[in-house]
Amino acid sequence: MTVVLNTFELRTKPSCDVINITEQVQNAVSKSGIKDGIVNVHVSGSTGAISTVEYEPGLVKNDIEEFLEKIIPYDRDYKHHRTWGDHNGAGHLRSLLLKTSQTFPFQNKRLILGTWQQIIFIECDEKARSRKIYCQIIGE
Amino acid sequence: MTVVLNTFELRTKPSCDVINITEQVQNAVSKSGIKDGIVNVHVSGSTGAISTVEYEPGLVKNDIEEFLEKIIPYDRDYKHHRTWGDHNGAGHLRSLLLKTSQTFPFQNKRLILGTWQQIIFIECDEKARSRKIYCQIIGE
Amino acid sequence: MTVVLNTFELRTKPSCDVINITEQVQNAVSKSGIKDGIVNVHVSGSTGAISTVEYEPGLVKNDIEEFLEKIIPYDRDYKHHRTWGDHNGAGHLRSLLLKTSQTFPFQNKRLILGTWQQIIFIECDEKARSRKIYCQIIGE
Repeated sequence: MTVVLNTFELRTKPSCDVINITEQVQNAVSKSGIKDGIVNVHVSGSTGAISTVEYEPGLVKNDIEEFLEKIIPYDRDYKHHRTWGDHNGAGHLRSLLLKTSQTFPFQNKRLILGTWQQIIFIECDEKARSRKIYCQIIGE
Repeated sequence: MTVVLNTFELRTKPSCDVINITEQVQNAVSKSGIKDGIVNVHVSGSTGAISTVEYEPGLVKNDIEEFLEKIIPYDRDYKHHRTWGDHNGAGHLRSLLLKTSQTFPFQNKRLILGTWQQIIFIECDEKARSRKIYCQIIGE
Repeated sequence: MTVVLNTFELRTKPSCDVINITEQVQNAVSKSGIKDGIVNVHVSGSTGAISTVEYEPGLVKNDIEEFLEKIIPYDRDYKHHRTWGDHNGAGHLRSLLLKTSQTFPFQNKRLILGTWQQIIFIECDEKARSRKIYCQIIGE
């Protein structure tokens, strides 16, 4: 049994940039040398999120953004804005809701995912950001 | 330390079938022979979800469905529908929101769960489906 | 590779008490003696939730509560209430949505978290509760 931490970086666009990170996570698993186990995919920060979706333009460019904007709109006077004078209250709430990590199984060095299931990073901040994604891989 | 992958299958009903999978997950843990560790419960696919709830009819047959229908209604013209000509845009968004996996601890071969806390699979697709659930078990 | 289960207890206030548990989780990791790995932070029960947020008063005392109250209000006639005669239907739905666990990576005995990213427990029940939080720590 071994633990290997591999990381990769993203350059995101503001306000609901949805990025397919399946290949980077698969690469992190492959180069770990671990055959069977789990990978904990995690972003350090409080305005990003990790989940899965079918990565096609209708969902990625429209439906996800409309849904999140409906339940947590950017243009609102969140109390968070009064604490620091910034305007990313919605980003924090979206990240809390969608969570900053998800854990996936792999077998024979391959992630166990459906054909139309991709691992995504969602930029919830209102600004473009550099993001570091941590893949903590455990197995044997 | 060992890794064991056990799986089981479900036959679901369409549109918010909530299935108690606690016993199947417990069986997967029991037959792994691992005493203490974690189990990553995962569905491969982009229109299912894993979470926990008190499995009683009021929540399972009514409240969960009403809540999901309120925030992500099925009967809407999602852009996803234009990509493939299908109609499960709501299912994809529900799955992204609720996530396709959750990881649970166990001790002495027993899942650590509250008395009224059951592990559930939620069918978010509009069609009945066959689902394969992966239990990646790690521990010693 | 080792597995260590450490726990701690919380005394919560009712209806959306948001508690910063970062230090307790870090202590659980530190005293495990494990250098690199993951920690599965889990509450047994069906009306609590684990996530992360920037722990500052605007979000913690106002924005989170307003958001959850908007999408899952307490004062509604949930069918769950008819099953047991209690009134915590909203608490169950919030817990299902936000989930009762999250898994985090650590390196050199330190949780990998952003500067403004704290691990939180959210009390979703309408009553003050005693909560036991389980930290299942796996690594080497």
